[in-house]
Amino acid sequence: MTRVDLNADMGESFGPWKMGDDAALLKTVTSANIACGAHAGDPDVMTATMRMAMNNGVGIGAHPGFADLQGFGRRRMSIPRDTLQNSIRYQVAAAVGVAKSLGATVRHLKIHGAMANMASEDEALARDLYEAALSVDPDLIVMVLCATAQESAVRALGCAYAGEIFADRAYNDDATLVDRSLPGAVIHDPDVAGKRMVEMVQAGAIITESGKRIETSIDTICLHGDTPTAVQIAGSVRNALEASGVDVRQFDGRRP
Amino acid sequence: MTRVDLNADMGESFGPWKMGDDAALLKTVTSANIACGAHAGDPDVMTATMRMAMNNGVGIGAHPGFADLQGFGRRRMSIPRDTLQNSIRYQVAAAVGVAKSLGATVRHLKIHGAMANMASEDEALARDLYEAALSVDPDLIVMVLCATAQESAVRALGCAYAGEIFADRAYNDDATLVDRSLPGAVIHDPDVAGKRMVEMVQAGAIITESGKRIETSIDTICLHGDTPTAVQIAGSVRNALEASGVDVRQFDGRRP
Amino acid sequence: MTRVDLNADMGESFGPWKMGDDAALLKTVTSANIACGAHAGDPDVMTATMRMAMNNGVGIGAHPGFADLQGFGRRRMSIPRDTLQNSIRYQVAAAVGVAKSLGATVRHLKIHGAMANMASEDEALARDLYEAALSVDPDLIVMVLCATAQESAVRALGCAYAGEIFADRAYNDDATLVDRSLPGAVIHDPDVAGKRMVEMVQAGAIITESGKRIETSIDTICLHGDTPTAVQIAGSVRNALEASGVDVRQFDGRRP
Amino acid sequence: MTRVDLNADMGESFGPWKMGDDAALLKTVTSANIACGAHAGDPDVMTATMRMAMNNGVGIGAHPGFADLQGFGRRRMSIPRDTLQNSIRYQVAAAVGVAKSLGATVRHLKIHGAMANMASEDEALARDLYEAALSVDPDLIVMVLCATAQESAVRALGCAYAGEIFADRAYNDDATLVDRSLPGAVIHDPDVAGKRMVEMVQAGAIITESGKRIETSIDTICLHGDTPTAVQIAGSVRNALEASGVDVRQFDGRRP
Repeated sequence: MTRVDLNADMGESFGPWKMGDDAALLKTVTSANIACGAHAGDPDVMTATMRMAMNNGVGIGAHPGFADLQGFGRRRMSIPRDTLQNSIRYQVAAAVGVAKSLGATVRHLKIHGAMANMASEDEALARDLYEAALSVDPDLIVMVLCATAQESAVRALGCAYAGEIFADRAYNDDATLVDRSLPGAVIHDPDVAGKRMVEMVQAGAIITESGKRIETSIDTICLHGDTPTAVQIAGSVRNALEASGVDVRQFDGRRP
Repeated sequence: MTRVDLNADMGESFGPWKMGDDAALLKTVTSANIACGAHAGDPDVMTATMRMAMNNGVGIGAHPGFADLQGFGRRRMSIPRDTLQNSIRYQVAAAVGVAKSLGATVRHLKIHGAMANMASEDEALARDLYEAALSVDPDLIVMVLCATAQESAVRALGCAYAGEIFADRAYNDDATLVDRSLPGAVIHDPDVAGKRMVEMVQAGAIITESGKRIETSIDTICLHGDTPTAVQIAGSVRNALEASGVDVRQFDGRRP
Repeated sequence: MTRVDLNADMGESFGPWKMGDDAALLKTVTSANIACGAHAGDPDVMTATMRMAMNNGVGIGAHPGFADLQGFGRRRMSIPRDTLQNSIRYQVAAAVGVAKSLGATVRHLKIHGAMANMASEDEALARDLYEAALSVDPDLIVMVLCATAQESAVRALGCAYAGEIFADRAYNDDATLVDRSLPGAVIHDPDVAGKRMVEMVQAGAIITESGKRIETSIDTICLHGDTPTAVQIAGSVRNALEASGVDVRQFDGRRP
Repeated sequence: MTRVDLNADMGESFGPWKMGDDAALLKTVTSANIACGAHAGDPDVMTATMRMAMNNGVGIGAHPGFADLQGFGRRRMSIPRDTLQNSIRYQVAAAVGVAKSLGATVRHLKIHGAMANMASEDEALARDLYEAALSVDPDLIVMVLCATAQESAVRALGCAYAGEIFADRAYNDDATLVDRSLPGAVIHDPDVAGKRMVEMVQAGAIITESGKRIETSIDTICLHGDTPTAVQIAGSVRNALEASGVDVRQFDGRRP
């Protein structure tokens, strides 16, 4: 039976400022990527989000990013390798220990924002980041963007991983995302998003704008949490998958 | 044979700014209280300091404080109980996980600055803080100021602890510290500091300014690291203790 | 003709996080208290909010607070007098200069959150804060809570000021606010808020829960911006005032 | 009579952390570039440093940088134009207003660290930054690195400027700095630094490693403040200049 996980970024509120409707999304997703206090989140938000994820049986992931609150980790920064690795270790360690204190476990790692974009283009960087995270907990499953340098990095490392595609983004023929500034780059229609995901998951392939199929291992679908229609798209994708007989369930972690 | 541990705060540099001579102090102390990135320290500093402590066979402690870099955690803040506990969990988790990634272990907990002052006056607060830390790692040895509400808290909790006195501060007859603004409150003379410590450790008692003895369990002596004479006082205290036959060694953790 | 100003806190978004509906409130208020980047706000938010205030003919105020983003400036901090004054100078200077760069002017000062609460209890602290702000711009009109130590401070200083009452809070007989935990402390009904304000403004007095009248100079009414019903209450208060013939207009600044 | 200004970065301490010996350098330099609280500095440090500069008759400059404390503004960040301009406005405004509150004036602007490096390569960026600063205070004299895109930008803007060379860095034939990793790139010998500066100032030209002369307007010499020999090099450069009859004095600002 075809099977897939649904993930979304969460725990990205900060102090008095709310972001996204985590409580609603946790009814739909099977894995939650929880901010670690660098690009977003704080110890209160992290704790509350982990508790909610536990209560909903949703897998907990550490979601580290650049320590740039104002820029939400979305601005590229030129940071030495050691400093990046130390930051990843610190953030993942915080998540792992806070989860443990609540009786929960961090199952997976997903890199956030500009750092993730950089890692999807640079295999050496991706390896640095994953190695740092795995040095804190070697059992982490590394979530990687299918058919990018992130995937090459986990294959080289030999660690457990889960391949990810986006529910709401169109793909170019080289598996990169269509630039946001182009028409059709972002899918806003929940029905369209749902149908695309069923098609790709059943095909075991990314289907690009031009119709090309790029075979890949789709273990999880990324649902964005911070758009107005986020909860609707998430529900539509889940419903469409289940209606077509796909088993929506946490990934186990694939070995290269 | 009488035995005592020597501890100092470390890893309190931040980014480009250095504080204290950690490398020199690590030749003298047996336990290092390492900042966790809230009042001081950053992932680079924490990692480098833990590595140095390991290489010197010095015990590693988590040293959390208020998230107030500019104030160095020395300004009292009025923070709700849950938020304080979540902050402690986050900071201790970061330290525990970073140590693990280096092949080291966090052995003890010591609260920093204004938060420690508040905990030495308020047993309920001290319990909250210690419980939060122990929820991340139940094997932590809690370092407490002898004869304060901190000590009452560990006794009530029944956890492993180590009682601490200051090498360079004069005591009042109620075991509180003589106010810094009063003459003689701070001991600047390395020889005087050394002699006082030998006397107190051998007596198993705090000896106050007036000469009164307050019996207590002295497991460790706090050496300050951020004063000009810090390294000298540390050396003098260690030499005086060893010359008088005291075994300078990491504490094991005392049970109430 | 009786006249009053309406003010609200604004510019309290930060980075990617939004707070309040400033655009809507700016249609109703006559003065905007704009965060200065310490408890909330950032240079982008400050700039955008000042621009919107200008375009709506709304008076711009500097709204400094404790440098505690996570706590939103609502947690009391124990900070030395000089450090507080330097922080106020820095924040007010930033607001004054950014406004100038946009062709606008900062007209007034309003202290935020826990710092304001402390200043309403402590005249010496209030004076310190106001003197610091006036050292940057001696023409600022200081907004003070009527019948508190804030008002005593501006009277002692002899500076221009505007007395303020709350639209949505019940008052005790000593002019302090009824504790939020008590029933009736916060007025949620827009109609009730509107009627109360007409009554108080026309009486030139705070009318307490028990019906007692405390004569005072009501120059401005504080409308909260961060509650779900904020925009509705603001509209209702403005409509009620105008319907009863009160002139809703920016204050000029009163001299003691 | 040949004339030159000496400048150094200052006010780069933060909270409890000290950087550089500002008090000593202020005896030697004629212009101080004072950090604005983004890459370094805080309101206490800014205030104290401006006071010291005033007392020494040293010209005060605003020295804004990336809001990246841990990286000290030395890490390149990819930030949208508007956000950069708003940040510069905010930082310069803070400096201008704090100076005013002390009875002083900000005379010049100098961009810090990675942002300055980027501006020396990108004229459009340099213009954006300078325009933002000048919108706060149109009388600022913009300090630019001689013969870089920074100089092209002030020429295009037509604003007052001062051309700057480094006392302790070797130059390539295209007026860029010799890479720090190459031998001879950084001059550590105070005597050598002094002689070079006399030669270049008297020649009115940068003299490169190969001996090539690049004619330029040398209005000020940058002395680094954060190296162990900073104070010595500063003194040596000043002495050498004065001994050879150069008038060491604040620049007036040159028009293109």
